[in-house]
Amino acid sequence: MTVRLETEPSGLAVLTIDAGPLNLYTLDLHADFDAALDRLGDARALLVRAEGKIVSGGVDVSLFAAQETPEQAKEMFDRMLALPEKIAALEIPTVFAAHGLCLTWAFEVAVACDLILAASSASFGLVEKVVGLTPTMGGTQRLAARAGVGRAKEFVMTGERYPASALEHWGVVNRVLPDDGFDAAARAFATALAEGPTRAHAATKKVLDHFSAGGVAEANTHITTIAADLYRTEDLRNAVRSFLAEGPGKAKFTGR
Amino acid sequence: MTVRLETEPSGLAVLTIDAGPLNLYTLDLHADFDAALDRLGDARALLVRAEGKIVSGGVDVSLFAAQETPEQAKEMFDRMLALPEKIAALEIPTVFAAHGLCLTWAFEVAVACDLILAASSASFGLVEKVVGLTPTMGGTQRLAARAGVGRAKEFVMTGERYPASALEHWGVVNRVLPDDGFDAAARAFATALAEGPTRAHAATKKVLDHFSAGGVAEANTHITTIAADLYRTEDLRNAVRSFLAEGPGKAKFTGR
Amino acid sequence: MTVRLETEPSGLAVLTIDAGPLNLYTLDLHADFDAALDRLGDARALLVRAEGKIVSGGVDVSLFAAQETPEQAKEMFDRMLALPEKIAALEIPTVFAAHGLCLTWAFEVAVACDLILAASSASFGLVEKVVGLTPTMGGTQRLAARAGVGRAKEFVMTGERYPASALEHWGVVNRVLPDDGFDAAARAFATALAEGPTRAHAATKKVLDHFSAGGVAEANTHITTIAADLYRTEDLRNAVRSFLAEGPGKAKFTGR
Amino acid sequence: MTVRLETEPSGLAVLTIDAGPLNLYTLDLHADFDAALDRLGDARALLVRAEGKIVSGGVDVSLFAAQETPEQAKEMFDRMLALPEKIAALEIPTVFAAHGLCLTWAFEVAVACDLILAASSASFGLVEKVVGLTPTMGGTQRLAARAGVGRAKEFVMTGERYPASALEHWGVVNRVLPDDGFDAAARAFATALAEGPTRAHAATKKVLDHFSAGGVAEANTHITTIAADLYRTEDLRNAVRSFLAEGPGKAKFTGR
Amino acid sequence: MTVRLETEPSGLAVLTIDAGPLNLYTLDLHADFDAALDRLGDARALLVRAEGKIVSGGVDVSLFAAQETPEQAKEMFDRMLALPEKIAALEIPTVFAAHGLCLTWAFEVAVACDLILAASSASFGLVEKVVGLTPTMGGTQRLAARAGVGRAKEFVMTGERYPASALEHWGVVNRVLPDDGFDAAARAFATALAEGPTRAHAATKKVLDHFSAGGVAEANTHITTIAADLYRTEDLRNAVRSFLAEGPGKAKFTGR
Amino acid sequence: MTVRLETEPSGLAVLTIDAGPLNLYTLDLHADFDAALDRLGDARALLVRAEGKIVSGGVDVSLFAAQETPEQAKEMFDRMLALPEKIAALEIPTVFAAHGLCLTWAFEVAVACDLILAASSASFGLVEKVVGLTPTMGGTQRLAARAGVGRAKEFVMTGERYPASALEHWGVVNRVLPDDGFDAAARAFATALAEGPTRAHAATKKVLDHFSAGGVAEANTHITTIAADLYRTEDLRNAVRSFLAEGPGKAKFTGR
Repeated sequence: MTVRLETEPSGLAVLTIDAGPLNLYTLDLHADFDAALDRLGDARALLVRAEGKIVSGGVDVSLFAAQETPEQAKEMFDRMLALPEKIAALEIPTVFAAHGLCLTWAFEVAVACDLILAASSASFGLVEKVVGLTPTMGGTQRLAARAGVGRAKEFVMTGERYPASALEHWGVVNRVLPDDGFDAAARAFATALAEGPTRAHAATKKVLDHFSAGGVAEANTHITTIAADLYRTEDLRNAVRSFLAEGPGKAKFTGR
Repeated sequence: MTVRLETEPSGLAVLTIDAGPLNLYTLDLHADFDAALDRLGDARALLVRAEGKIVSGGVDVSLFAAQETPEQAKEMFDRMLALPEKIAALEIPTVFAAHGLCLTWAFEVAVACDLILAASSASFGLVEKVVGLTPTMGGTQRLAARAGVGRAKEFVMTGERYPASALEHWGVVNRVLPDDGFDAAARAFATALAEGPTRAHAATKKVLDHFSAGGVAEANTHITTIAADLYRTEDLRNAVRSFLAEGPGKAKFTGR
Repeated sequence: MTVRLETEPSGLAVLTIDAGPLNLYTLDLHADFDAALDRLGDARALLVRAEGKIVSGGVDVSLFAAQETPEQAKEMFDRMLALPEKIAALEIPTVFAAHGLCLTWAFEVAVACDLILAASSASFGLVEKVVGLTPTMGGTQRLAARAGVGRAKEFVMTGERYPASALEHWGVVNRVLPDDGFDAAARAFATALAEGPTRAHAATKKVLDHFSAGGVAEANTHITTIAADLYRTEDLRNAVRSFLAEGPGKAKFTGR
Repeated sequence: MTVRLETEPSGLAVLTIDAGPLNLYTLDLHADFDAALDRLGDARALLVRAEGKIVSGGVDVSLFAAQETPEQAKEMFDRMLALPEKIAALEIPTVFAAHGLCLTWAFEVAVACDLILAASSASFGLVEKVVGLTPTMGGTQRLAARAGVGRAKEFVMTGERYPASALEHWGVVNRVLPDDGFDAAARAFATALAEGPTRAHAATKKVLDHFSAGGVAEANTHITTIAADLYRTEDLRNAVRSFLAEGPGKAKFTGR
Repeated sequence: MTVRLETEPSGLAVLTIDAGPLNLYTLDLHADFDAALDRLGDARALLVRAEGKIVSGGVDVSLFAAQETPEQAKEMFDRMLALPEKIAALEIPTVFAAHGLCLTWAFEVAVACDLILAASSASFGLVEKVVGLTPTMGGTQRLAARAGVGRAKEFVMTGERYPASALEHWGVVNRVLPDDGFDAAARAFATALAEGPTRAHAATKKVLDHFSAGGVAEANTHITTIAADLYRTEDLRNAVRSFLAEGPGKAKFTGR
Repeated sequence: MTVRLETEPSGLAVLTIDAGPLNLYTLDLHADFDAALDRLGDARALLVRAEGKIVSGGVDVSLFAAQETPEQAKEMFDRMLALPEKIAALEIPTVFAAHGLCLTWAFEVAVACDLILAASSASFGLVEKVVGLTPTMGGTQRLAARAGVGRAKEFVMTGERYPASALEHWGVVNRVLPDDGFDAAARAFATALAEGPTRAHAATKKVLDHFSAGGVAEANTHITTIAADLYRTEDLRNAVRSFLAEGPGKAKFTGR
């Protein structure tokens, strides 16, 4: 298996890419990743991380070589695209933890997650230009949605590897953490999310999907319904009660 | 009254939130704020500021507790949302000056304004997660429109309080000013706007509304009409004449 | 002639604005610029630069004075807008190199290019407010697409001149280079683009146009087709082969 | 006891300030802190942290009121200064972890440590100006040694509270970590230091003491002796051997 | 007169350079500046600002041409150097407000002040290389004391003009304020200093002089005496009393 | 030969490290580097660069293994230290161009140069901790002189690899340039220095040496003599004349 899934008591599911030495994208890895996502059950948050010295060296280029026609290529690209789409559609908070070099598909998975943590010495690239290609798994556009079209063009057209701090500066990476202790820090961060008001987080994701589709105006037509629906959750009702009785920060959340 | 409105000779209207000690959002404050906006008359710019040690501690949580059904909650949320929408629809430049802690509804009002000034030690948060809720007054999506979806998710999902400098870094706060002298500096800045070509500023706002609705392409289909309409203003005609006769920066503007 | 076009052996076309001392926008300059774009032939990348101490002092204001009615103004604005639109529609990578002060129309051309390089001491402004106007050539909205609506409002409403480093911070300028050696550095950078997989770059531009029109979702419905079409290029086929045989970075690209 | 000391298996000593609710500096706290430092034994690294909502609200001002003459005040200030001096003189790596507001004495202790970690929402201030005083425990000058004299003057003369990100920007705080999971992250970071080549770290500290005293030239006259002395350690000898045999990063260090 | 001095009720002395159009350094201006400093009396803070479009275009080069021998040049340079030295020796807080271009001598005066405020569109340069010279009024070394030797070399050797934001990034400029309202903002900021504990500020300056001369160790040998001397001031005694009776921030300071 | 030296018509000497694949420090490389420095003749500026994928992987660790006693080690370290000291003592401007990974000795050489240019994807580290050592060639203290002691401790104690942008942020790297065209850009930059007032640059270096030894006060006692000595140069005399006759920027410099 090239992908492992473990669920912690907090409700945090930890998905680990483990296809060393380079964690290259292959059809097998895709299938394993996909299957792991199917096993999430009632996990309350997802942390995606990788084993080894780097996150990923990119796609196994022989996969590109194996496609003989544009039609075949499109079929493969459609399949590849389904993976980040599936992640983006999850209703729980998703965190990507990049501890090292993170190229092409892995970066495209990262930007399909809600939040991205990076170790200081991590670096990122959409280097498809090396084989005369453009990114196929949504990474260009998801990068643009975080950092604007100017940065998206730069990232893809130069094909440079950018350090974590640059992507933090752009609003793509959310936080840069020290190399030392990175894994513990990332897990602690994601655990706190898993133990939080995950239904409210799902609502936040839904509102931003409306924003992505039609801007502020469209999101505004949906937000009050989405927010009002949270009144159906125990979490909101308990937390309001707890706030009034004990002050902020004492409520426990269950995701119900 | 929890909200004051004063109009200065420059045409600057100064709206002051004054519901100490915490400037919490209540239905009364909403009504006072709303009424103040109705009295703007022919003000040429609006400065929103607050009295007291902080801008606002957020919403009076008992308001959330008072809603018993999702339907009631939606009704209240619709009403709340009307406030930032009304501000965003103003045809004059609007400036929000945050001198201290600025939580939830007040942040959502801030991002509904055109420009945001912050004192160095101001901080900001959408902390609705504390009560299992998501922001209801458009703040999430307006934040995304300024800083991208990655930062919007981070801000809401972590519920952290971010310093002014972080939000300046993100493009949300436009300028950070020293604590000492902040109020004088903010008023001088807003006064300059009020004395400027406010009809041109209205045009700029209109173009960006089209951008928000349909991107660059849509804005481009409207921009030349919007700009050409400025030929109906005295301000443009006088300023062009002044520029050619006396050089740049000598024109006076009246908003007509 | 106020605009020169030279094509280098690499396939890089260098368009030089040379209407000293101020490189003001006039109808003649527009016509020359337009004609130069018509002569691009099979150039593989375009570098736009200017001669003289500054990039441009803006539009010759007498042009605004010459329009007597809003209808006439709209006609002129439509014509002006056609220039950045033509640049944005080019299927090759476009780079704008700003070595000094770059105002109004020149900034609007810059943001219609894919990538912007700036010398350390370059500065930028949309200063139309000086004549009671709003930018007419798409600059406001293209700025918003790179830096968010908060920065776009600030840039246009204050009418300040912003240094290169500020716009780099915002994601508008892609790279800031030292004044000393700027021209050589910009040409070397653009040459590398011209010698790269320009068909892939065209695909990247197309995907981002879909993103601009309809967000991530719309771009995702097109990306796999766009990417698969690259299988019709020699560049992709050769580069994949080269990668597998010789490792990354050895492929030569021809734009076919 | 207002200060706790625990030693972890890694050799990391964790000193926790626990004098809630405000962790104010008092003579008792000083004595407890001092005694804890005396119990470090052969700890290999020190982590200083605090319990409660904030790191510290500063000094108990009644202490200042209790001094009646300049002579008495000087005696007290001499005593206070001894604490950061003692920390700075430790031969092991020292890390300060600030999870929240950190004022006056606590900031002065922080800059006497080697490395400073801060949670995103932490903030810092030398606010002695509030009582007409200047910082007495070396904080001004240690800040200058990290951030230059311009920032040191600003920090002390304005007496503002600066967010963690500002001090990271200045080179005072070394890393900013998310609030969520901060404690785990800080411990993991410090543990890695404790398990590292602590003798080499002691050498680094010694070289920088020479730099502080006499600049690069003075440090250069000592560095080769200091470095050569490391040849007396098992750690260097083992690590060189390990590097040549197994490659980098496999060596274990014991501090001997 | 090329330099004006006004004293405000707060105790703030405002020194205005007014030698338009370029505020060039001449022997007359030096004499006027020097005389103004002699009239400071018991001002409690000093704000240095300039009238006109720029702060200064530098030194009148004919002054350099007038020196025929190295000996004459040295005599002139000694005289020039005395001006920033006199400012640096003032025992009151000094603030430099740069609203526009600020070259050579004016920059050297700026870094001899304690705090530097700059308008967004201000820029700075030590451009002596243009005439084959190096800065003579201490600017290089005072820049190094704020920003490190790497930046000092860069600034002087490239002779570029750096924007306010770059120097803020370096720790040289303390705060960047909007162009609109800059003068009001700068005065409000300096007034707050003038009304503060100016004796404590003098102490802070003294400690940092010791730091500059001999590093942290030397400053530490003096700090407790310097701080204890503040017990001789009414300001400290009143402020401690006020703090204990009314809480922080209520004390009034008189500079005695 | 592991080091090449070429002198360009501008007077720029280009020293290229070419000891592929890793450009490791060895005694041979040291000797070649040293000999190249001896051949500088009347070069007017020095550019240090490297050939290959990286700048350097560090020191050949077998060299450390070969030393058996602290005494032997000290002897070797003394020899190593002589290299950066020799570079730092050069009276011409020195530029280090880092196009990729730059570890240990190469970083120590870089900070001994006046100015450091880095490609976007370059990274830097003082990773001596891997073998239980501290940097021996002055890098720690020269880093502190540029970035403060806080960053110096962090850099050496964590042993992380820092991206170019981080070191630019710290004031260590002076400029970050795009990977594409980096070599051309670096040469153009250094050529401009070589063609400039190199005697003035030598004076600037001398002043900063005094600053390093004794702070602002010491530099101030020397600056007027150092500057006055420039009156003995043709460059100053010609440039002053040229400035008055033709305006700024027309003078040619010869280094005499």
